[in-house]
Amino acid sequence: MNQKDIQCINEIKILALDMINNANSGHPGAVLSQAPILYTLYANYLRVDLENPNWINRDRFVLSSGHASALLYSLLHVCGYDISLNDLRGFRRINSITPGHPEYKLTPGVECSTGPLGQGVSTAVGMALAERYIKSLLDAEEEKTQKIINYKTYVMCSDGDLMEGVSYEALSFAGAQKLNNLVLLYDDNNMSIDGTLDTTFNENIEKRFEAIGFEVIIVKDGANLTQIDKALNKAQKSTKPVIIIFKTILGNGSYNQNTNQVHSGPLSDADLYNLRQTLGITSQPFYVTKDSMIYLHDKIVNRMKPEINAWNENMNTVRMSTSENLNNILNMLENNKNIINFDSSKYQINVNYNEELNISNYKVMNLFANSTNLLLNGSADLFKSVKNVIDNSPFMSNVTPLGRNIRFGVREHAMGAILNGMALSGLKVCGSTFLAFSDYLKPAIRMSALMSLPVTYIFSHDSISIGQDGPTHEPIEQLAMLRTIPNLITYRPADILELMGSWDSILKQNKPTVLVLTKQKVPKIPGTNQAMIQKGAYLVRDCGSTPDAILISSGSDLTNAYIIANKLAVNGINLNVVSIPSLELFLAQDEEYRNKLLPENIKRITLEASNSYVLGSLATNIDYAIGLNDFGLSGTSEEVIKEMQFDLDSLLLKVQKLVRK
Amino acid sequence: MNQKDIQCINEIKILALDMINNANSGHPGAVLSQAPILYTLYANYLRVDLENPNWINRDRFVLSSGHASALLYSLLHVCGYDISLNDLRGFRRINSITPGHPEYKLTPGVECSTGPLGQGVSTAVGMALAERYIKSLLDAEEEKTQKIINYKTYVMCSDGDLMEGVSYEALSFAGAQKLNNLVLLYDDNNMSIDGTLDTTFNENIEKRFEAIGFEVIIVKDGANLTQIDKALNKAQKSTKPVIIIFKTILGNGSYNQNTNQVHSGPLSDADLYNLRQTLGITSQPFYVTKDSMIYLHDKIVNRMKPEINAWNENMNTVRMSTSENLNNILNMLENNKNIINFDSSKYQINVNYNEELNISNYKVMNLFANSTNLLLNGSADLFKSVKNVIDNSPFMSNVTPLGRNIRFGVREHAMGAILNGMALSGLKVCGSTFLAFSDYLKPAIRMSALMSLPVTYIFSHDSISIGQDGPTHEPIEQLAMLRTIPNLITYRPADILELMGSWDSILKQNKPTVLVLTKQKVPKIPGTNQAMIQKGAYLVRDCGSTPDAILISSGSDLTNAYIIANKLAVNGINLNVVSIPSLELFLAQDEEYRNKLLPENIKRITLEASNSYVLGSLATNIDYAIGLNDFGLSGTSEEVIKEMQFDLDSLLLKVQKLVRK
Repeated sequence: MNQKDIQCINEIKILALDMINNANSGHPGAVLSQAPILYTLYANYLRVDLENPNWINRDRFVLSSGHASALLYSLLHVCGYDISLNDLRGFRRINSITPGHPEYKLTPGVECSTGPLGQGVSTAVGMALAERYIKSLLDAEEEKTQKIINYKTYVMCSDGDLMEGVSYEALSFAGAQKLNNLVLLYDDNNMSIDGTLDTTFNENIEKRFEAIGFEVIIVKDGANLTQIDKALNKAQKSTKPVIIIFKTILGNGSYNQNTNQVHSGPLSDADLYNLRQTLGITSQPFYVTKDSMIYLHDKIVNRMKPEINAWNENMNTVRMSTSENLNNILNMLENNKNIINFDSSKYQINVNYNEELNISNYKVMNLFANSTNLLLNGSADLFKSVKNVIDNSPFMSNVTPLGRNIRFGVREHAMGAILNGMALSGLKVCGSTFLAFSDYLKPAIRMSALMSLPVTYIFSHDSISIGQDGPTHEPIEQLAMLRTIPNLITYRPADILELMGSWDSILKQNKPTVLVLTKQKVPKIPGTNQAMIQKGAYLVRDCGSTPDAILISSGSDLTNAYIIANKLAVNGINLNVVSIPSLELFLAQDEEYRNKLLPENIKRITLEASNSYVLGSLATNIDYAIGLNDFGLSGTSEEVIKEMQFDLDSLLLKVQKLVRK
Repeated sequence: MNQKDIQCINEIKILALDMINNANSGHPGAVLSQAPILYTLYANYLRVDLENPNWINRDRFVLSSGHASALLYSLLHVCGYDISLNDLRGFRRINSITPGHPEYKLTPGVECSTGPLGQGVSTAVGMALAERYIKSLLDAEEEKTQKIINYKTYVMCSDGDLMEGVSYEALSFAGAQKLNNLVLLYDDNNMSIDGTLDTTFNENIEKRFEAIGFEVIIVKDGANLTQIDKALNKAQKSTKPVIIIFKTILGNGSYNQNTNQVHSGPLSDADLYNLRQTLGITSQPFYVTKDSMIYLHDKIVNRMKPEINAWNENMNTVRMSTSENLNNILNMLENNKNIINFDSSKYQINVNYNEELNISNYKVMNLFANSTNLLLNGSADLFKSVKNVIDNSPFMSNVTPLGRNIRFGVREHAMGAILNGMALSGLKVCGSTFLAFSDYLKPAIRMSALMSLPVTYIFSHDSISIGQDGPTHEPIEQLAMLRTIPNLITYRPADILELMGSWDSILKQNKPTVLVLTKQKVPKIPGTNQAMIQKGAYLVRDCGSTPDAILISSGSDLTNAYIIANKLAVNGINLNVVSIPSLELFLAQDEEYRNKLLPENIKRITLEASNSYVLGSLATNIDYAIGLNDFGLSGTSEEVIKEMQFDLDSLLLKVQKLVRK
């Protein structure tokens, strides 16, 4: 490292600060503490192809401290990524490619949306896990494919990232999995938004990370380029996941350095002026010298060129391979799209079918799971209960890296974030827990939805019918929570046919989805139809004339709805029954379809053993929404259902009363 | 410890297994591994008054591994708590006091609802924090009050508890706060539901806990009473929080011991028979010898009697004190009810009032905060942004234990669970973060609601108007999520008056509540009324005749609704405007009030910058629900609002179109 590097770093710093001051919003503190570290990483280590930012064998970098986005954009600009000075002027403005926090798919060089602390770190663990899996897949193919995938995942994180429980969960998992392709860069500045960390976060980080199986490298002066370089160099050869603890100064060089004042908000004019003087940058704002632009760009290109040339050459040979498996893998990696064709119409279902829906799900998953090895599947320590196991594949570990069943431990939140990282790496992934515990991973589900990743959450043990484990284990409001997350599609199939139709729909999309399952036995219901799942809702029972009311229901409640309609028919009450396996898909249909199925002038009654407000928005009014808005109880399944007046007799009376109201 | 202790433990074990086998459901594994530990704790250390299970100076015990509930109930029965053999026969049956997982207020001796892993541990940290605070309060009073409160909090936890990120967050916080009144009992059996932990959780626990500031005590044989006793004895004198690592065998003595098969489900008849033989218990099921009942009961009573007598004597003297402050504290502790009277009608608001609502909230909180010192307040590192600071009180730490502002660090989830523990100890508590990050603590909010605890969550930075931080920081679906949690009341006040009314309502209840605030400036809106908050919704603009439609809105959107109604009046469209600061309170009103405010035969349009489905259940139908069902964007506040068509002009057109539809 030499004077040119220092000049480059200083220009990158000032450029980022110009962005923040121009936007009148942003986070200068982390920009100043992290700049030397990220510069050294990009200049000397990160294996990227500047001409092809999506090169499949690139190292991944995740800025978990997403608030330092100005630094990342500024650095990427000087590296030569396709981000112009004009883009940087648009920092934090609408329709720019430089938003307040990094956003996936928006900006070249940005691998992952970050911002909510802890998520980036945990997602990076998923990227590292995916790399090991894909590398192992290719290693198993033939000798020349062994050079296609072999990269590291680096992640920059802040004190806040490490305080978040999700990062602890994910890093503990990374330690247990011995992910030696993961390098955590920790900006240890002992400062958070509300002040110093002495009484909030005073762990011995070195010891804590040794305890969870990391190699720990300490950089006493996180602004010293030689020390930074040495640490990054050492990290290359580790046999364990690595954390480099960089002791830094928040807002290094600002008048307010080492105080929480410099965390966010623009620097004062005087402060910025002074910093410019100190760093020797006296140009007008938004200016980078040509020298620096060329210097950093060439440094990266010259370092990478031989490797990329060799890789391309090798890849040309590999492409001539006719192995379907190999071609599938390469297509997936290059297009980052992983579509699985599951034609469930091939499978005939006996009308007498009656089975626990999670067991049916195990069977259905194994109908398509072996058609591809690009689908992975995990559980937060509930494989035994949810039963989403891929047959003939071991649990994933460092000695069985090709295991397609991942035991995440009792770590729901990390499971979600790790699945996101795997999906970002091109894999299709599933993860399971109980529906009641979907709460634990809500922030990660939101990130799946925000990035539109092909993650399928399998949430079983719906709903109060689980009975004996009581209210903590009985979902009530979770379905409503999931249905209200933007860009996420929730499926609550009623029987084996709807379950197959749900998977059909899930697998042919590249979207975040939730599959809600009961562990109760459910029969095959007359009128259900797997092809109709894509419409979200459809008629399963047509009363044959103008109905007195329409009963709208889903999942394990549909059987009751169907029986109620049949029983009330005897009393001369004519009900249509609509199955609504996916509210989101239904709301996306055109008005004609929606109005035909649920005409405004006919009474609409919703029925679900779940919070009634969301599905209730389809009811005539909220009084026509039959649901559960209290917590559950502990007792046998029958006892709980009866006590909460959700048994068939009680429901029948409720529906009858509403029809006659 | 002698033969009688062993006999007692064996009877407690078999009794618990009888319960599980009778219920045909439960968790024998943890019963068998934890029995000797919990027995020794209760017999020799736990300071309780069997005649008064709610004695305010009792030690607290939390079973974080709530699935071991059969053991706890069995043990409490033999101790002499008011739990009969018949109650035990009702294990996991409806309306019993022995539900599947421990439930607060249901069973004598149960301090806290547990079941979702990680919550109990974290809640126990809150109990310990509350003890230190209350003790410090009393210590500051006068010499004789110094003996009133001085207890420890013990918590039993499993591997699963420690894998959960929330427990890491809370325990890291406990270490930073140096809570030496907390003792964690760790059932280290190296087994979870899906199998051994070698590839999922292989941390060096000793080292990890030393790193976060705990004293670590290791018990090599967790079934050895002498070793257990010695460890518990050592824990009494620690100057730090303590973890005792008990190396145990899951399902100790079962044919399936040390396998995941013994985690849940009844033992086979043969297994239970064999275990009975091995333990020398040959009685019929549900039988405890009189000897054992007397032995354990007397052991506890004899140990505690002198202390309780002295304490009662001292308390009688203290009761004669006339200090109002002291009496308040004692009332709170004895009734576990903490009502604060805040008569906001005393305060006049200028019609030109216009202020950021979170700043107004800071002012309002400080109007009542100093009327009591039984209200504590914290933030997950966002005091600087949310501004919910109690004036003239330091941040809480081990050197300022009377600080009423708690810096939880960037640990939203632990904040929620710790607040629960403090509320369980009689305090009224608040905690803040951004509304978008309420996701992180959803599981803890659910526990507040399930236990009906007086915790107030202050969620600021509602909604897309925060602008520049972008979609990760902009709440969309969170309001819907909160409104659908049973037994939780969400307030989204529109202006300073409604804010004061919300606090009036919050403080006079002993209930879990959420206060949603914008950081935008909001004017005083004509027609708002603090007394009407208790109704949940009310008319703020009466068009004077039969309205063409009713516009239903809340929070920072109400201003727009009001302006739109005024503007459309010029075009001859007559709108009533209903403010709905609390959907939950409104839905709890009688049908007459609801129908009068929102008559069925008049068009109802809802308007909120938030997911539209939940409030939309009050609209004519879902097409009349104006809201935001996509993620936000990064830009200035104005840019984002405009781009998402939530600016006044766009909204006006939308409302007009719906009225004319």
